[in-house]
Amino acid sequence: MFVSDCLNINEQGHLTIGGRDTVELAQTFGTPLYVMDEQQIRSNCARYKKSIDAFYGGNGLACYASKACCTRAICQIVKEEGLGLDVVSGGELYTALSVDFPMEKVYFHGNNKTVEELLLALEHHVGRIVVDNITELELLNSLAKAQNCQAEILFRIKPGVEAHTHQFIRTGQIDSKFGFALETGEAMEAVKKAIALPNITLVGLHCHIGSQIFDIDPFEHAAQIMLDFIRQIKEQHGYEITELNLGGGFGVKYVPEDKPVEYERYMEKVSQVVHNICQKSGLKLPFIVIEPGRSIVGTAGVTLYQVGGVKEIPGIRTYVSVDGGMGDNPRYALYQSEYEAVIANKAAQPKVRTVTIAGKCCESGDLLGENMPIQEVAPGDTLAVFSTGAYNYSMSSNYNRIPKPAMVLVNGTEARVVVKRETFEDIIRNDLL
Amino acid sequence: MFVSDCLNINEQGHLTIGGRDTVELAQTFGTPLYVMDEQQIRSNCARYKKSIDAFYGGNGLACYASKACCTRAICQIVKEEGLGLDVVSGGELYTALSVDFPMEKVYFHGNNKTVEELLLALEHHVGRIVVDNITELELLNSLAKAQNCQAEILFRIKPGVEAHTHQFIRTGQIDSKFGFALETGEAMEAVKKAIALPNITLVGLHCHIGSQIFDIDPFEHAAQIMLDFIRQIKEQHGYEITELNLGGGFGVKYVPEDKPVEYERYMEKVSQVVHNICQKSGLKLPFIVIEPGRSIVGTAGVTLYQVGGVKEIPGIRTYVSVDGGMGDNPRYALYQSEYEAVIANKAAQPKVRTVTIAGKCCESGDLLGENMPIQEVAPGDTLAVFSTGAYNYSMSSNYNRIPKPAMVLVNGTEARVVVKRETFEDIIRNDLL
Repeated sequence: MFVSDCLNINEQGHLTIGGRDTVELAQTFGTPLYVMDEQQIRSNCARYKKSIDAFYGGNGLACYASKACCTRAICQIVKEEGLGLDVVSGGELYTALSVDFPMEKVYFHGNNKTVEELLLALEHHVGRIVVDNITELELLNSLAKAQNCQAEILFRIKPGVEAHTHQFIRTGQIDSKFGFALETGEAMEAVKKAIALPNITLVGLHCHIGSQIFDIDPFEHAAQIMLDFIRQIKEQHGYEITELNLGGGFGVKYVPEDKPVEYERYMEKVSQVVHNICQKSGLKLPFIVIEPGRSIVGTAGVTLYQVGGVKEIPGIRTYVSVDGGMGDNPRYALYQSEYEAVIANKAAQPKVRTVTIAGKCCESGDLLGENMPIQEVAPGDTLAVFSTGAYNYSMSSNYNRIPKPAMVLVNGTEARVVVKRETFEDIIRNDLL
Repeated sequence: MFVSDCLNINEQGHLTIGGRDTVELAQTFGTPLYVMDEQQIRSNCARYKKSIDAFYGGNGLACYASKACCTRAICQIVKEEGLGLDVVSGGELYTALSVDFPMEKVYFHGNNKTVEELLLALEHHVGRIVVDNITELELLNSLAKAQNCQAEILFRIKPGVEAHTHQFIRTGQIDSKFGFALETGEAMEAVKKAIALPNITLVGLHCHIGSQIFDIDPFEHAAQIMLDFIRQIKEQHGYEITELNLGGGFGVKYVPEDKPVEYERYMEKVSQVVHNICQKSGLKLPFIVIEPGRSIVGTAGVTLYQVGGVKEIPGIRTYVSVDGGMGDNPRYALYQSEYEAVIANKAAQPKVRTVTIAGKCCESGDLLGENMPIQEVAPGDTLAVFSTGAYNYSMSSNYNRIPKPAMVLVNGTEARVVVKRETFEDIIRNDLL
């Protein structure tokens, strides 16, 4: 009925998430409130894991792309589900360390890792460092040498595949800040260099072709290109790449019109392509890594707000103001991302209004959406925005000195705070006079 | 020479701010680093204050719009300079309270103040609450009644003036989440209601016509419209509005092509308009409030970064990666805002390159600018981005779990940390398992 399985309506006509009444959650924990359904997160993790078992003989690893939502509690769940972790900064790595995440299953990404971050990764024996550029390759070699260790790396490659998605989150093309280009010979030069460097072990290749992709073809195409490059490396250098990381970008449902692919279909298709090509070209089957982020946590989350003023501007539009906004969810301001919303305390009622949902920031662009169908709405109502589990808390700011919301994890009858609500004291904590 | 007076080049060919060598600041305090020049902030405050003295007989108040950059240290400076303060949230008010800011000079704005925020404002006798809508008016009256006090208010009015600026930050038109419309009769209805409410004292009217405006005419026009409404109120209700708050929006120089108006010219022109109209229509001269934010702190700030990889993509562009990005400055990602930048350690050299400056976030849209002229650039250089004093720290996030930079205030020979650099521990502080 809704964009996510974990959402429903109870006998009181209230929206539920994971069986819990959202109106009660808002009353108990206050608003704005991020709510995540633990079962949905676990089940999404399990689907990716099982798809590698089912379609690729378990010869791979699904890594949760923690930039989607990185908290200690979520890292703990991902660890328990047996997935690996994709981190892109020292802060994400630190969060993983704080829950004793198995470091051999951690992939460290990023286009500009600092010396401190690389040292942290080496010190804790992070499984793979995904090297983005030559400067980083040389830096890492010298740091590993000083530490008397080997850095096991992947190269980030631009496969030149363009996924059909929003311009801002298209990343596979040659005009990208990320990675090495194939067509200019840059990638092969880097491979040659890496093979020669004493403290670098080149294990694999990585690519990431975009975000919120609703199509299998681009992944298939990227796998073909990457395997072809692996074949060239073998031919030219006699060096066998054993790991292929195809990144993430699997689309999720934000609004009813979104038609995401069933997650299992990615591995099924990719597995076919990889098997076929390896058989033809005499390559060993590589260890396959995929990195779902949004599709693990996105639809597992809703954000609850309290409605303040409702402002009807005759002939123009109706603004519904809520007690959060671009501070806790900047995605409409950044990308005009669409969301579905309901009045949680009237979820069983028909959507008879079309409104603009405005945040409380002192900025006209602080909107959560425009032309949104919604139930009758009045001050004091609880508004629920769906599919906010990814890139909401992780992108949140203190714009206007507004404290970040709490995050609650629901699991059947249990609901527990996993991120405490920020206080005003938190906000001035680092201020000095 | 540069977009801000506080910037210069020293004998080593290094960029200076407030006379301090930025390369040394970067070495001493680390990067990314926000640096603010105290003298520039104080001098901007003084210019607004003096312009009210010079052109309006001191019958007014310049309030710093703290949303531009609200820290304890800046609130303290503003207090010492004798300005008032515009706050838009409990968090900004709390920051002001923490430096004993005189509450009678505080204006509390916002389109959706919460009950907690209104109570905090009443409890601390905030000078004026700027009421945005009827729901808020009624709520405030009932809260003031319960507290047995009078709430002294302004109404936020939509004057219908469109300033020529970016769509996102245009706020005077009728299609806005902010305020009461004049042309629909909504504003007059609210006035009538406020006069009748026992715990509300309607003192004044407020309008805000946009941001980063390079023109005096819209302010003149807004003042005319507001005074005409004040006259109508007097005629229809025999009630005299004594305070006129014309908001802010005064443009600043981001790139050499920007031509901001000298701040003094606003008050000079507005004063003429107000004097003329009041004389003609028999109105008393109102107390005038203006609310500069960006123009107090914007050009007083630079952000220093260390350059990481430099990626040349033949025939396409050159990406220069730095150790910060949309986390500390989301304005390019949000509004495609333009900035000027230099290589701080080569500031005396000619700008021979045109580059795209990329942040370190795992997102293609994480850019600080495109087509930016810059000196020869190499890994390890210090990059300085100008005019980052406003809406950078205040909009900063922990996207990718990247800690927020420190902020240093320079004043002649002194340089002191006024916001401590966030630690990884800060980032997981509110996480629970």
